[in-house]
Amino acid sequence: METVKRPGGRSARVRDAVRQATLAELAEHGFRGLTVENVAERSGVHKTTVYRRWGSVEGLISDALELAREEPWPVPDTGSIDGDLRDIVRLVRTGFDDPETGPVASAFVAAAMQSPDAARALHAFFLARHEQSAEVVRRAVARGELPAAVDAHEVIRVAIAPVYYRLFVAHEPVTERDADRAAAAALAAARAGVL
Amino acid sequence: METVKRPGGRSARVRDAVRQATLAELAEHGFRGLTVENVAERSGVHKTTVYRRWGSVEGLISDALELAREEPWPVPDTGSIDGDLRDIVRLVRTGFDDPETGPVASAFVAAAMQSPDAARALHAFFLARHEQSAEVVRRAVARGELPAAVDAHEVIRVAIAPVYYRLFVAHEPVTERDADRAAAAALAAARAGVL
Repeated sequence: METVKRPGGRSARVRDAVRQATLAELAEHGFRGLTVENVAERSGVHKTTVYRRWGSVEGLISDALELAREEPWPVPDTGSIDGDLRDIVRLVRTGFDDPETGPVASAFVAAAMQSPDAARALHAFFLARHEQSAEVVRRAVARGELPAAVDAHEVIRVAIAPVYYRLFVAHEPVTERDADRAAAAALAAARAGVL
Repeated sequence: METVKRPGGRSARVRDAVRQATLAELAEHGFRGLTVENVAERSGVHKTTVYRRWGSVEGLISDALELAREEPWPVPDTGSIDGDLRDIVRLVRTGFDDPETGPVASAFVAAAMQSPDAARALHAFFLARHEQSAEVVRRAVARGELPAAVDAHEVIRVAIAPVYYRLFVAHEPVTERDADRAAAAALAAARAGVL
Protein backbone atom coordinates (compact mmCIF):
# COMPACT_ATOMS: atom_id res chain seq x y z
CA MET A 1 0.00 0.00 0.00
CA GLU A 2 1.59 3.33 -1.04
CA THR A 3 1.84 6.16 1.47
CA VAL A 4 0.07 9.23 0.13
CA LYS A 5 0.72 12.47 2.01
CA ARG A 6 -2.74 13.99 2.20
CA PRO A 7 -4.93 14.60 5.22
CA GLY A 8 -6.99 11.57 6.06
CA GLY A 9 -5.45 9.48 3.29
CA ARG A 10 -4.16 6.58 5.36
CA SER A 11 -6.85 7.05 7.97
CA ALA A 12 -9.57 6.88 5.32
CA ARG A 13 -8.05 3.72 3.86
CA VAL A 14 -7.95 2.10 7.29
CA ARG A 15 -11.55 3.09 7.91
CA ASP A 16 -12.62 1.64 4.57
CA ALA A 17 -10.72 -1.61 5.15
CA VAL A 18 -12.32 -2.04 8.58
CA ARG A 19 -15.73 -1.21 7.23
CA GLN A 20 -15.41 -3.70 4.35
CA ALA A 21 -14.27 -6.36 6.82
CA THR A 22 -17.23 -5.57 9.10
CA LEU A 23 -19.69 -5.96 6.21
CA ALA A 24 -18.05 -9.22 5.06
CA GLU A 25 -18.09 -10.65 8.61
CA LEU A 26 -21.75 -9.64 9.04
CA ALA A 27 -22.65 -11.29 5.74
CA GLU A 28 -20.92 -14.52 6.78
CA HIS A 29 -21.68 -14.76 10.49
CA GLY A 30 -24.42 -12.23 11.29
CA PHE A 31 -24.41 -9.87 14.28
CA ARG A 32 -23.97 -12.67 16.80
CA GLY A 33 -20.80 -13.88 15.14
CA LEU A 34 -19.21 -10.42 14.79
CA THR A 35 -16.04 -9.91 16.84
CA VAL A 36 -13.44 -7.13 16.88
CA GLU A 37 -10.74 -9.81 16.55
CA ASN A 38 -12.18 -11.24 13.31
CA VAL A 39 -12.69 -7.78 11.79
CA ALA A 40 -9.10 -6.84 12.68
CA GLU A 41 -7.70 -10.03 11.16
CA ARG A 42 -9.78 -9.74 7.98
CA SER A 43 -8.98 -6.06 7.46
CA GLY A 44 -5.26 -6.42 8.15
CA VAL A 45 -5.55 -3.56 10.66
CA HIS A 46 -4.01 -4.15 14.07
CA LYS A 47 -6.45 -5.21 16.78
CA THR A 48 -5.38 -2.44 19.15
CA THR A 49 -6.04 0.14 16.42
CA VAL A 50 -9.55 -1.26 15.86
CA TYR A 51 -10.24 -1.22 19.62
CA ARG A 52 -8.89 2.32 19.96
CA ARG A 53 -10.88 3.80 17.06
CA TRP A 54 -14.10 1.73 17.15
CA GLY A 55 -14.21 0.48 20.73
CA SER A 56 -16.48 -2.54 20.20
CA VAL A 57 -18.67 -4.39 17.72
CA GLU A 58 -21.35 -1.76 18.36
CA GLY A 59 -18.89 0.92 17.22
CA LEU A 60 -18.04 -1.10 14.10
CA ILE A 61 -21.74 -1.50 13.22
CA SER A 62 -22.51 2.18 13.83
CA ASP A 63 -19.62 3.25 11.60
CA ALA A 64 -20.60 0.86 8.81
CA LEU A 65 -24.17 2.21 9.00
CA GLU A 66 -22.93 5.79 8.85
CA LEU A 67 -21.07 5.03 5.64
CA ALA A 68 -24.08 3.12 4.25
CA ARG A 69 -26.23 6.18 4.92
CA GLU A 70 -23.98 8.31 2.71
CA GLU A 71 -24.21 5.90 -0.20
CA PRO A 72 -26.50 6.92 -3.07
CA TRP A 73 -29.87 5.17 -3.02
CA PRO A 74 -31.46 4.82 -6.47
CA VAL A 75 -34.66 6.84 -6.04
CA PRO A 76 -36.93 5.72 -8.90
CA ASP A 77 -38.38 8.23 -11.36
CA THR A 78 -40.91 6.39 -13.54
CA GLY A 79 -43.08 9.42 -14.22
CA SER A 80 -45.96 8.35 -11.95
CA ILE A 81 -46.34 7.90 -8.21
CA ASP A 82 -47.75 4.39 -8.81
CA GLY A 83 -44.58 3.24 -10.52
CA ASP A 84 -42.23 5.09 -8.17
CA LEU A 85 -43.76 3.71 -4.95
CA ARG A 86 -43.96 0.22 -6.41
CA ASP A 87 -40.27 0.34 -7.38
CA ILE A 88 -39.23 1.58 -3.92
CA VAL A 89 -40.99 -1.29 -2.15
CA ARG A 90 -39.64 -3.80 -4.70
CA LEU A 91 -36.11 -2.48 -4.06
CA VAL A 92 -36.54 -3.08 -0.34
CA ARG A 93 -37.79 -6.60 -0.96
CA THR A 94 -35.08 -7.59 -3.45
CA GLY A 95 -32.40 -6.03 -1.22
CA PHE A 96 -33.24 -8.50 1.55
CA ASP A 97 -33.58 -11.32 -0.96
CA ASP A 98 -30.08 -10.69 -2.36
CA PRO A 99 -27.53 -13.20 -0.97
CA GLU A 100 -24.92 -10.43 -0.70
CA THR A 101 -26.83 -7.47 0.73
CA GLY A 102 -29.62 -9.36 2.52
CA PRO A 103 -27.65 -10.90 5.40
CA VAL A 104 -25.85 -7.60 6.08
CA ALA A 105 -29.10 -5.61 6.16
CA SER A 106 -30.69 -8.23 8.43
CA ALA A 107 -27.65 -8.10 10.72
CA PHE A 108 -28.07 -4.32 11.02
CA VAL A 109 -31.71 -4.74 12.10
CA ALA A 110 -30.74 -7.46 14.60
CA ALA A 111 -27.84 -5.40 15.98
CA ALA A 112 -30.09 -2.38 16.55
CA MET A 113 -32.42 -4.53 18.65
CA GLN A 114 -29.58 -5.26 21.05
CA SER A 115 -27.41 -2.19 21.05
CA PRO A 116 -28.60 1.39 21.70
CA ASP A 117 -25.64 2.69 19.65
CA ALA A 118 -26.60 0.57 16.66
CA ALA A 119 -30.26 1.62 17.12
CA ARG A 120 -29.27 5.30 16.94
CA ALA A 121 -27.19 4.66 13.82
CA LEU A 122 -30.01 2.68 12.18
CA HIS A 123 -32.50 5.41 13.09
CA ALA A 124 -30.31 8.02 11.36
CA PHE A 125 -29.93 5.68 8.37
CA PHE A 126 -33.70 5.30 7.95
CA LEU A 127 -34.29 9.02 8.48
CA ALA A 128 -31.97 9.64 5.51
CA ARG A 129 -33.69 6.93 3.42
CA HIS A 130 -37.16 8.33 4.21
CA GLU A 131 -35.99 11.81 3.21
CA GLN A 132 -34.44 10.59 -0.07
CA SER A 133 -37.47 8.46 -0.95
CA ALA A 134 -39.92 11.23 -0.04
CA GLU A 135 -38.80 12.94 -3.26
CA VAL A 136 -41.17 10.68 -5.25
CA VAL A 137 -44.09 11.92 -3.13
CA ARG A 138 -43.08 15.57 -3.53
CA ARG A 139 -42.89 15.11 -7.31
CA ALA A 140 -46.36 13.50 -7.26
CA VAL A 141 -47.73 16.51 -5.37
CA ALA A 142 -46.11 18.83 -7.94
CA ARG A 143 -47.78 16.82 -10.74
CA GLY A 144 -51.13 17.04 -8.99
CA GLU A 145 -51.31 13.27 -8.32
CA LEU A 146 -51.52 13.61 -4.52
CA PRO A 147 -52.99 16.20 -2.14
CA ALA A 148 -50.50 18.94 -1.18
CA ALA A 149 -51.03 18.31 2.55
CA VAL A 150 -49.72 14.71 2.36
CA ASP A 151 -46.97 13.65 4.82
CA ALA A 152 -44.32 12.42 2.37
CA HIS A 153 -42.31 10.49 4.99
CA GLU A 154 -45.43 8.73 6.25
CA VAL A 155 -46.35 7.56 2.74
CA ILE A 156 -42.89 5.97 2.48
CA ARG A 157 -43.18 4.37 5.94
CA VAL A 158 -46.63 2.90 5.27
CA ALA A 159 -45.48 1.59 1.86
CA ILE A 160 -42.41 -0.28 3.11
CA ALA A 161 -43.56 -1.26 6.63
CA PRO A 162 -45.46 -4.44 5.58
CA VAL A 163 -42.28 -5.84 3.96
CA TYR A 164 -40.28 -5.33 7.19
CA TYR A 165 -43.19 -6.63 9.29
CA ARG A 166 -43.28 -9.89 7.31
CA LEU A 167 -39.51 -10.32 7.36
CA PHE A 168 -38.63 -9.39 10.94
CA VAL A 169 -41.79 -9.70 13.02
CA ALA A 170 -44.21 -12.29 11.62
CA HIS A 171 -41.41 -14.20 9.81
CA GLU A 172 -43.46 -14.73 6.68
CA PRO A 173 -42.23 -14.90 3.08
CA VAL A 174 -42.57 -11.71 1.00
CA THR A 175 -43.58 -12.14 -2.63
CA GLU A 176 -43.40 -9.44 -5.29
CA ARG A 177 -47.18 -9.34 -5.15
CA ASP A 178 -47.01 -8.63 -1.41
CA ALA A 179 -44.61 -5.77 -2.11
CA ASP A 180 -46.82 -4.33 -4.86
CA ARG A 181 -49.89 -4.58 -2.64
CA ALA A 182 -48.12 -2.67 0.16
CA ALA A 183 -47.20 0.11 -2.30
CA ALA A 184 -50.79 0.22 -3.62
CA ALA A 185 -52.18 0.40 -0.08
CA ALA A 186 -49.98 3.39 0.83
CA LEU A 187 -50.98 5.11 -2.38
CA ALA A 188 -54.70 4.53 -1.80
CA ALA A 189 -54.35 5.95 1.71
CA ALA A 190 -52.43 8.98 0.44
CA ARG A 191 -55.05 9.60 -2.24
CA ALA A 192 -57.83 9.29 0.34
CA GLY A 193 -56.14 12.07 2.33
CA VAL A 194 -55.45 10.05 5.52
CA LEU A 195 -51.63 10.32 5.33
CA MET B 1 -46.71 -27.58 47.07
CA GLU B 2 -49.34 -30.37 47.39
CA THR B 3 -49.10 -33.40 45.18
CA VAL B 4 -52.32 -33.83 43.17
CA LYS B 5 -52.80 -37.21 41.45
CA ARG B 6 -54.15 -36.19 38.06
CA PRO B 7 -52.56 -36.59 34.65
CA GLY B 8 -50.27 -33.70 33.85
CA GLY B 9 -50.92 -32.02 37.18
CA ARG B 10 -47.37 -31.74 38.43
CA SER B 11 -46.01 -31.50 34.92
CA ALA B 12 -48.34 -28.62 34.10
CA ARG B 13 -47.32 -26.81 37.30
CA VAL B 14 -43.65 -27.22 36.44
CA ARG B 15 -44.27 -25.95 32.93
CA ASP B 16 -46.14 -22.93 34.26
CA ALA B 17 -43.43 -22.14 36.82
CA VAL B 18 -40.72 -22.32 34.15
CA ARG B 19 -42.76 -20.23 31.79
CA GLN B 20 -43.42 -17.53 34.40
CA ALA B 21 -39.73 -17.48 35.25
CA THR B 22 -38.85 -17.16 31.54
CA LEU B 23 -41.20 -14.19 31.13
CA ALA B 24 -39.86 -12.52 34.28
CA GLU B 25 -36.24 -13.01 33.20
CA LEU B 26 -37.02 -11.67 29.72
CA ALA B 27 -38.72 -8.62 31.24
CA GLU B 28 -35.69 -7.92 33.44
CA HIS B 29 -32.74 -8.85 31.24
CA GLY B 30 -34.03 -9.23 27.66
CA PHE B 31 -33.16 -12.09 25.32
CA ARG B 32 -29.42 -11.53 25.64
CA GLY B 33 -29.54 -11.95 29.40
CA LEU B 34 -31.72 -15.09 29.36
CA THR B 35 -29.99 -18.23 30.66
CA VAL B 36 -31.31 -21.70 31.53
CA GLU B 37 -29.55 -21.38 34.92
CA ASN B 38 -31.40 -18.19 35.87
CA VAL B 39 -34.76 -19.56 34.75
CA ALA B 40 -34.14 -22.76 36.75
CA GLU B 41 -33.18 -20.82 39.87
CA ARG B 42 -36.11 -18.43 39.60
CA SER B 43 -38.67 -21.17 38.95
CA GLY B 44 -37.40 -23.48 41.68
CA VAL B 45 -37.22 -26.28 39.07
CA HIS B 46 -33.99 -28.26 38.95
CA LYS B 47 -31.58 -27.17 36.23
CA THR B 48 -31.27 -30.68 34.80
CA THR B 49 -35.06 -30.88 34.48
CA VAL B 50 -35.14 -27.58 32.59
CA TYR B 51 -32.34 -28.76 30.29
CA ARG B 52 -34.05 -32.11 29.71
CA ARG B 53 -37.50 -30.69 28.90
CA TRP B 54 -36.61 -27.37 27.19
CA GLY B 55 -33.07 -27.97 25.95
CA SER B 56 -31.94 -24.33 25.69
CA VAL B 57 -33.05 -20.71 25.92
CA GLU B 58 -34.51 -21.11 22.43
CA GLY B 59 -36.72 -23.92 23.75
CA LEU B 60 -37.79 -21.78 26.70
CA ILE B 61 -38.74 -18.90 24.40
CA SER B 62 -40.61 -21.16 21.99
CA ASP B 63 -42.61 -22.70 24.83
CA ALA B 64 -43.46 -19.31 26.35
CA LEU B 65 -44.63 -18.13 22.93
CA GLU B 66 -46.75 -21.25 22.46
CA LEU B 67 -48.53 -20.51 25.71
CA ALA B 68 -48.88 -16.80 24.82
CA ARG B 69 -50.52 -17.84 21.56
CA GLU B 70 -53.22 -19.72 23.45
CA GLU B 71 -54.06 -16.73 25.64
CA PRO B 72 -57.23 -14.84 24.76
CA TRP B 73 -56.60 -11.63 22.86
CA PRO B 74 -59.28 -8.97 23.36
CA VAL B 75 -60.61 -8.55 19.83
CA PRO B 76 -62.48 -5.21 19.86
CA ASP B 77 -66.14 -4.99 18.83
CA THR B 78 -67.04 -1.29 18.65
CA GLY B 79 -69.74 -1.71 16.00
CA SER B 80 -67.72 -0.18 13.14
CA ILE B 81 -64.58 -1.20 11.29
CA ASP B 82 -63.10 2.27 11.95
CA GLY B 83 -63.29 1.80 15.71
CA ASP B 84 -62.25 -1.87 15.65
CA LEU B 85 -59.12 -1.35 13.54
CA ARG B 86 -58.17 1.76 15.52
CA ASP B 87 -58.48 -0.19 18.79
CA ILE B 88 -56.40 -3.11 17.48
CA VAL B 89 -53.51 -0.83 16.47
CA ARG B 90 -53.77 1.10 19.76
CA LEU B 91 -53.58 -2.21 21.66
CA VAL B 92 -50.37 -3.12 19.85
CA ARG B 93 -48.88 0.29 20.63
CA THR B 94 -49.85 0.33 24.32
CA GLY B 95 -48.69 -3.28 24.72
CA PHE B 96 -45.13 -2.28 23.80
CA ASP B 97 -45.42 0.89 25.88
CA ASP B 98 -46.41 -1.09 29.01
CA PRO B 99 -43.44 -1.55 31.38
CA GLU B 100 -44.56 -5.11 32.15
CA THR B 101 -45.53 -6.54 28.75
CA GLY B 102 -43.36 -4.29 26.54
CA PRO B 103 -39.91 -5.69 27.37
CA VAL B 104 -41.15 -9.29 27.07
CA ALA B 105 -42.75 -8.67 23.67
CA SER B 106 -39.60 -6.90 22.47
CA ALA B 107 -37.48 -9.79 23.72
CA PHE B 108 -39.61 -12.22 21.66
CA VAL B 109 -39.02 -10.16 18.51
CA ALA B 110 -35.28 -9.97 19.25
CA ALA B 111 -35.05 -13.70 19.98
CA ALA B 112 -36.76 -14.59 16.71
CA MET B 113 -34.13 -12.61 14.81
CA GLN B 114 -31.42 -14.85 16.22
CA SER B 115 -32.99 -18.25 16.62
CA PRO B 116 -34.84 -20.19 13.90
CA ASP B 117 -36.82 -22.03 16.64
CA ALA B 118 -38.01 -18.75 18.16
CA ALA B 119 -38.78 -17.43 14.65
CA ARG B 120 -41.02 -20.44 13.96
CA ALA B 121 -42.79 -19.96 17.29
CA LEU B 122 -43.25 -16.22 16.70
CA HIS B 123 -44.55 -16.92 13.19
CA ALA B 124 -47.19 -19.27 14.62
CA PHE B 125 -48.03 -16.68 17.29
CA PHE B 126 -48.66 -13.95 14.69
CA LEU B 127 -50.59 -16.31 12.44
CA ALA B 128 -52.95 -16.90 15.37
CA ARG B 129 -53.18 -13.16 16.13
CA HIS B 130 -53.89 -12.31 12.48
CA GLU B 131 -56.63 -14.94 12.41
CA GLN B 132 -58.25 -13.70 15.65
CA SER B 133 -58.04 -10.05 14.59
CA ALA B 134 -59.37 -10.79 11.09
CA GLU B 135 -62.75 -11.28 12.76
CA VAL B 136 -63.25 -7.48 12.78
CA VAL B 137 -62.76 -7.40 9.00
CA ARG B 138 -65.16 -10.31 8.44
CA ARG B 139 -67.80 -8.53 10.55
CA ALA B 140 -67.25 -5.36 8.49
CA VAL B 141 -67.81 -7.32 5.29
CA ALA B 142 -71.00 -8.79 6.77
CA ARG B 143 -72.18 -5.25 7.63
CA GLY B 144 -71.41 -4.10 4.09
CA GLU B 145 -68.62 -1.74 5.22
CA LEU B 146 -65.90 -3.42 3.16
CA PRO B 147 -65.82 -5.26 -0.20
CA ALA B 148 -66.40 -9.03 0.15
CA ALA B 149 -63.17 -9.83 -1.74
CA VAL B 150 -60.95 -8.14 0.88
CA ASP B 151 -58.01 -10.15 2.32
CA ALA B 152 -58.80 -9.91 6.05
CA HIS B 153 -55.31 -10.95 7.19
CA GLU B 154 -53.67 -8.39 4.92
CA VAL B 155 -55.85 -5.57 6.33
CA ILE B 156 -54.58 -6.49 9.81
CA ARG B 157 -50.95 -6.70 8.64
CA VAL B 158 -51.06 -3.32 6.87
CA ALA B 159 -52.76 -1.72 9.91
CA ILE B 160 -50.21 -2.85 12.49
CA ALA B 161 -47.04 -2.96 10.35
CA PRO B 162 -46.18 0.77 10.70
CA VAL B 163 -46.14 0.44 14.52
CA TYR B 164 -43.68 -2.46 14.37
CA TYR B 165 -41.64 -0.70 11.67
CA ARG B 166 -41.20 2.38 13.86
CA LEU B 167 -40.37 0.34 16.96
CA PHE B 168 -38.03 -2.31 15.60
CA VAL B 169 -36.65 -1.06 12.29
CA ALA B 170 -36.50 2.75 12.14
CA HIS B 171 -36.36 3.08 15.97
CA GLU B 172 -38.77 6.00 16.04
CA PRO B 173 -41.29 6.87 18.76
CA VAL B 174 -44.91 5.80 18.13
CA THR B 175 -47.62 8.24 19.21
CA GLU B 176 -51.31 7.42 19.46
CA ARG B 177 -51.79 9.63 16.42
CA ASP B 178 -49.27 7.47 14.51
CA ALA B 179 -51.24 4.36 15.52
CA ASP B 180 -54.56 5.90 14.46
CA ARG B 181 -53.11 7.01 11.15
CA ALA B 182 -51.85 3.48 10.43
CA ALA B 183 -55.32 2.08 11.12
CA ALA B 184 -56.92 4.75 8.90
CA ALA B 185 -54.47 4.00 6.09
CA ALA B 186 -55.27 0.26 6.12
CA LEU B 187 -58.97 1.05 6.13
CA ALA B 188 -58.69 3.49 3.20
CA ALA B 189 -56.75 0.84 1.24
CA ALA B 190 -59.34 -1.84 2.06
CA ARG B 191 -62.17 0.49 1.00
CA ALA B 192 -60.34 1.31 -2.23
CA GLY B 193 -60.24 -2.43 -3.01
CA VAL B 194 -56.45 -2.83 -3.12
CA LEU B 195 -56.23 -5.27 -0.15
